[in-house]
Amino acid sequence: MKPPKNPTLAEVGEQAAINVIIAHAPSSRNGDDAAVLPHAAPNSRMVVTTDMLVENRHFSLDWSTPAEIGRKAITQNFADVEAMGARPIAALLGLSVPSYTRLGFVSDLARGIAQRVGDYGAELVGGDITDGEAIVISVTAIGQLGGSIPALTLDAARPGQILIASGEIGASAAGYALLKRFGRDGVPREFMPLIQSHCATKIPRGRGFVARTAGVTAMTDNSDGLVHDLETMARRSGVTINVDSAGISPSPLMRKAAELLSADPWEWVLSGGEDHTLLATTNCAPPVGFRRIGLVNKQHFHRLVTVDHKTPDYTAGWNSF
Amino acid sequence: MKPPKNPTLAEVGEQAAINVIIAHAPSSRNGDDAAVLPHAAPNSRMVVTTDMLVENRHFSLDWSTPAEIGRKAITQNFADVEAMGARPIAALLGLSVPSYTRLGFVSDLARGIAQRVGDYGAELVGGDITDGEAIVISVTAIGQLGGSIPALTLDAARPGQILIASGEIGASAAGYALLKRFGRDGVPREFMPLIQSHCATKIPRGRGFVARTAGVTAMTDNSDGLVHDLETMARRSGVTINVDSAGISPSPLMRKAAELLSADPWEWVLSGGEDHTLLATTNCAPPVGFRRIGLVNKQHFHRLVTVDHKTPDYTAGWNSF
Repeated sequence: MKPPKNPTLAEVGEQAAINVIIAHAPSSRNGDDAAVLPHAAPNSRMVVTTDMLVENRHFSLDWSTPAEIGRKAITQNFADVEAMGARPIAALLGLSVPSYTRLGFVSDLARGIAQRVGDYGAELVGGDITDGEAIVISVTAIGQLGGSIPALTLDAARPGQILIASGEIGASAAGYALLKRFGRDGVPREFMPLIQSHCATKIPRGRGFVARTAGVTAMTDNSDGLVHDLETMARRSGVTINVDSAGISPSPLMRKAAELLSADPWEWVLSGGEDHTLLATTNCAPPVGFRRIGLVNKQHFHRLVTVDHKTPDYTAGWNSF
Repeated sequence: MKPPKNPTLAEVGEQAAINVIIAHAPSSRNGDDAAVLPHAAPNSRMVVTTDMLVENRHFSLDWSTPAEIGRKAITQNFADVEAMGARPIAALLGLSVPSYTRLGFVSDLARGIAQRVGDYGAELVGGDITDGEAIVISVTAIGQLGGSIPALTLDAARPGQILIASGEIGASAAGYALLKRFGRDGVPREFMPLIQSHCATKIPRGRGFVARTAGVTAMTDNSDGLVHDLETMARRSGVTINVDSAGISPSPLMRKAAELLSADPWEWVLSGGEDHTLLATTNCAPPVGFRRIGLVNKQHFHRLVTVDHKTPDYTAGWNSF
């Protein structure tokens, strides 16, 4: 009897699923009870972070390919490592999937994970796969923080510093809005960059590490919404932050999408999140790849975050429940 | 209006859930994009591992309290760290729960996690909480491997070494069998130690680290079934392993439970798993806390693992699908 071409996990079992993951993302560190990670240099420290993606909450198989989901899962975790000023070196994958899931799904997901992990010169060093009702992808990212310069924390923004950013803001939310309206196949071709921003988010690699060596003191990534994430930084640092709208204004493509959808692109910019753009503060000039988008001020009791010195039009952020 | 006494996560939101977790398991490293972990000593390395627990696959709220589930989640991950000969120092928690989940569940789970993490002098340093259909608990454990002695890997068993173990084998499976028959409230009181072994597994802390400094070369933990886990070690090391039944025989309490259930306690011992007992090989005398349970032999083509030089009566192991 010929084996089925794309069997289910119930048909082939756990080991076959592990095998296809390791085939796509091999690592000499994988396969024992735990993975051993060396320290690159004296004074180096590790940073660790974890994020879960739940089917139909954080992604939809109607809109994203398994490989895109794998790339997105790594990007959002590695962005948190970069946001500390560290270099991602390894990832762990926890995967819960229904037993009727096809082996091809696991294989494609692993391919996407391996691609993005490879973009960073990092490795998938271990994981766990298990039966579950919905698809839940849990990625843990591990980074190396070399040298004795402090990590880039949320509480280190200081009055007088400039606020800087390293990428587009609002593009992921624009892609999401297009997908909701048109579905993946119905989105006009010209908007593909926005769809990619949502389905397989990518950030320039190494910017966090570079920023840390170039005088940045506080950093986070735009994951839950720009105003929301900057409010967290402002609160933790005991400062207020004013953003210049000129530095964060929607791209022409986002404006075009907004026109088509009769939406306000500023909502995507101010409360969309999920771009994982790095947001930072510094006393120095913006490092390469960053632009100035605002200024850190002393604390007063008006608002933690303003745009052009006014209350932002949109302030909502992601809440899981 | 008085707030509800035990509100749902839909009522109080994500931040309230994070707050109760941090209240039970505070850490100065928690709360930024990622947690920074220092290196204790020159030559020290990190070990990392992750494991998922899915409701009604790995635990049932009918049988376990949330605090027990928290303790079990940490034990099974820290056992993997110990099995490398490392010391657990930190954990990350990924938690997916339905929005109708009570805040009290999160609080009790966090209490159990904090208890077990505290048993090891470790800390919960970060995590992620999100909405999902079923409860999925993803724990990542981080350990420190101090000094230059190699980690205790699956491929380092050598012919002539003795096989050693550090705890009861089969007790968790016995507890599971009792719960299946009687439910938590119906299990006769005398069997509570077996129920505890299943619902809130505990292993003596620090044995992995001690074993590594006392000449052990290969180590794993009994998670998927004794024969199954030893087969993995034998295959990876290119050896065969013979277990002496005298070293792994069921405890009097397990025998009593087996009699009540008309079950064979040897099935629990040989294929039960989930005890997380450390299994190791060494050329030296067993370190304190370990006993001799068998011998490592050269490879021949009979079987990877024998018990009293015969094919084991039970060889099945855990398969997620």
